[in-house]
Amino acid sequence: MNIKPVLYVVGLFLMLLGVVMVIPGTYDLIAEEGGGAGFFQAAIVTFVCGGVCSMSTRFTLFRLDPRQIFLLTTICWMAVSAFGALPFMFVEDMSFTDSFFETMSGITTTGSTVIAGLDQVDRGILLWRSLLQWLGGIGFIVMAVAILPFLKVGGMRLFQSESSDWSDKIMPRSGSIAKRIVGTYLALTLLCALGYWIGDMTWFDAINHSMTTLSTGGYSTWDASIGHFKSYWVYWNGTVFMLLGSMPFVLFVKFARGHTTDLFEDSQVQTLVGFMVALWVVMALWLTFEKDWQFFHALTLVAFNTASVVSTTGFALTDYATWSLFTTVIFFFLMFVGGCSGSTAGGMKIFRFQIGFKLLQLQLKQASHPRAFLVQRYNGQEITNDILRSLVAFSFFYGLLIALITMLLSALGLDLITSMTGAITAVSNVGPGLGSIIGPAGNFIPLPDAAKWILSVGMLMGRLEILTVLVLMTPSFWRN
Amino acid sequence: MNIKPVLYVVGLFLMLLGVVMVIPGTYDLIAEEGGGAGFFQAAIVTFVCGGVCSMSTRFTLFRLDPRQIFLLTTICWMAVSAFGALPFMFVEDMSFTDSFFETMSGITTTGSTVIAGLDQVDRGILLWRSLLQWLGGIGFIVMAVAILPFLKVGGMRLFQSESSDWSDKIMPRSGSIAKRIVGTYLALTLLCALGYWIGDMTWFDAINHSMTTLSTGGYSTWDASIGHFKSYWVYWNGTVFMLLGSMPFVLFVKFARGHTTDLFEDSQVQTLVGFMVALWVVMALWLTFEKDWQFFHALTLVAFNTASVVSTTGFALTDYATWSLFTTVIFFFLMFVGGCSGSTAGGMKIFRFQIGFKLLQLQLKQASHPRAFLVQRYNGQEITNDILRSLVAFSFFYGLLIALITMLLSALGLDLITSMTGAITAVSNVGPGLGSIIGPAGNFIPLPDAAKWILSVGMLMGRLEILTVLVLMTPSFWRN
Ligand SMILES: [K+]
Ligand SMILES: [K+]
Repeated sequence: MNIKPVLYVVGLFLMLLGVVMVIPGTYDLIAEEGGGAGFFQAAIVTFVCGGVCSMSTRFTLFRLDPRQIFLLTTICWMAVSAFGALPFMFVEDMSFTDSFFETMSGITTTGSTVIAGLDQVDRGILLWRSLLQWLGGIGFIVMAVAILPFLKVGGMRLFQSESSDWSDKIMPRSGSIAKRIVGTYLALTLLCALGYWIGDMTWFDAINHSMTTLSTGGYSTWDASIGHFKSYWVYWNGTVFMLLGSMPFVLFVKFARGHTTDLFEDSQVQTLVGFMVALWVVMALWLTFEKDWQFFHALTLVAFNTASVVSTTGFALTDYATWSLFTTVIFFFLMFVGGCSGSTAGGMKIFRFQIGFKLLQLQLKQASHPRAFLVQRYNGQEITNDILRSLVAFSFFYGLLIALITMLLSALGLDLITSMTGAITAVSNVGPGLGSIIGPAGNFIPLPDAAKWILSVGMLMGRLEILTVLVLMTPSFWRN
Repeated sequence: MNIKPVLYVVGLFLMLLGVVMVIPGTYDLIAEEGGGAGFFQAAIVTFVCGGVCSMSTRFTLFRLDPRQIFLLTTICWMAVSAFGALPFMFVEDMSFTDSFFETMSGITTTGSTVIAGLDQVDRGILLWRSLLQWLGGIGFIVMAVAILPFLKVGGMRLFQSESSDWSDKIMPRSGSIAKRIVGTYLALTLLCALGYWIGDMTWFDAINHSMTTLSTGGYSTWDASIGHFKSYWVYWNGTVFMLLGSMPFVLFVKFARGHTTDLFEDSQVQTLVGFMVALWVVMALWLTFEKDWQFFHALTLVAFNTASVVSTTGFALTDYATWSLFTTVIFFFLMFVGGCSGSTAGGMKIFRFQIGFKLLQLQLKQASHPRAFLVQRYNGQEITNDILRSLVAFSFFYGLLIALITMLLSALGLDLITSMTGAITAVSNVGPGLGSIIGPAGNFIPLPDAAKWILSVGMLMGRLEILTVLVLMTPSFWRN
């Protein structure tokens, strides 16, 4: 395999990353925060390394085959994490392990953090964390739009179910779709920031939080997370935009172009909204009657935190793991769910549950009426053998990966709850786990370095739909 | 639907159950244990009720359609649990809830118990518990042989993958197969009892434990379970026969008829044995080096307890949940695995993992070589859309059922570990869970009554491959 074109593109991405580092650097200079120099050093190192990488591998024929794209995707994400870690090292004197973890957690929009005392941290660093998540979120969507369909063109069955949403739409080339999606993403981010600002956040807090809300990332500028702002308006603004962040962005593009019904008629969106509302009612009533909470207060806290976990954002509003045993168990299972495909959210994704549920219904009908001929469709498409295979393979390895990471973490001496929820929260890109260490009120600092590296791999694999990374580890990938 | 033939068969089963109750009753009379009268009362009530049920619905045309068989299967299992509970009520004055739980746990070969102080309990009751598991075990295999293929004949896709082992064998009618399987089951039980007796068990203990070993049930006659017998011979005898109990019994029938290679060449058996040996080496080495255990001692304890959990037997040899965090996590995941299809074991079953793994391999190969044409086979059969659908439907609801039971248990005030492992251990028919209440050293007595009923439903659904019960809850089942 010729890896030169791969390195060329990776170099371009690093140069871009270097340029972005100038933003928090400049902010620090203007706000006299003291972190400016560190950012500019990091920017120069990153830009130069990227430049050298690109220049030395520049070539004319720019055609990538599927295998090169697989390699490119994984290497890009890893290189950005490695260089994106530099500001944390230069400005905050953090170790490479912690810096890499924080960056990987950022660009995969996971949001698990190893920084405590956010209230005292350099504000450029806070901005950098938000920027990483914002870029990671849009990077993920564009990847789903511009890269995955290309892999399909090459006969790729792997992402057929993921990208099938695209194939049947009358849309021009993916480049222009990508541009429109970026525009929509930017517009929604500004709207969200405006909402937060109206809720009495400062502009700095509003912009940071809107970037990490839309990207379903979940980094905050305060240790108390969103709970720092005592405002129902802020909480509901967050709830709405976290859910928007976990819906297919292509539908927003259509919405903006006048096709408003597509959004409301989308099967994933309907299921997501219906599921959330049902959940809110059950949990809010439970807390009202069992715990004597005031109903609207309960509803707000439930809505925000469940939206946070299902959208895989990971903001915490009070330590929800201490509410009650029943609600804790619900939060545990919500970590698997995830948002819609084509959004910034992680997790198993709504459509996989929908297909599982539809097949279950079909099986049950077939059982009592064996002679009936039933074909299963999803979103108008027949669920073919290919889609089923990919579904089984994905779900199977999703479970296996979580089991494997849980075992490795426990071998490092972590307890069952910490190991298991740590694995789930990483692979699903949620952010916080459960238990006293990494729960909503906790932090990932106390974990051993080895655990941070294991979780970094889990976050990366979870973000790249697992198989994209796994395929690099097979001998047949490297054979011609 | 005409439910008369269903009630007729259920009545026959109850009459048989009444007759079997005479065995522990007679034992109690001879051993002067005092429980005799209770058993005979229960036997009479059961026999008479069964007789009335049968006589009143007797009819000539005996033909059952698939829907009647579904209904029959579930009602049979429930009726046997209800009447099998009578001896516990009459002899030990247990509540109906506890008695029903203990019986359901018995005939589903789960082995979760609500009886403490086994060392002091009426010995006829101990024998009754073992008999319930032994009958449940053989009942489950015969069901897989004689009932599931019949459902398939009716166009039933549901169990195609389960029963496909049968269709391609040159075997006479299922009746004679069933007889041979019962013979093999009996022979293996006697062999196992002989092994335990050589290891210095009394005949009473040897026969009770061999019945609960072969059926992968796990009821013991002592509070310390198998750990009561301080004998490596006993432990290894148990390990071997628990694993035999979780292998396809049709292979033993063939083995006895001279086709010895079929057993060793079977894909499920190979995977099971290979997996166990690898697991033993890893865990025994871990305990030797990390915990300074003596190697052979560690190997024995690891082999016995992992075989116990994977075969879904549930005997405990020391409180393995306290060995170390790493091994506890392994035991947690082992609760899902289960034995081979066509055995007495529960769980997800080995072949489902094999298919998942094969599809994953296929996807990865296809990803890097998009133009290659790859067909996936399992045991020589192509993995068709039907099989995939049934696999997805089963696995999906397996997960959903565990999540649902976990939530219900936590709503009753049980902690996350107890709720979750309680749900898994019930649906997988393992027996013990983890945590301080229902762990290997614990007992299900402290659970609230509602939890016991919920777990009873879980055990039943797990045993009947879930969909068999679930289909009764769909409106289309009751429509013509
Ligand atoms: K997140
Ligand atoms: K069992």
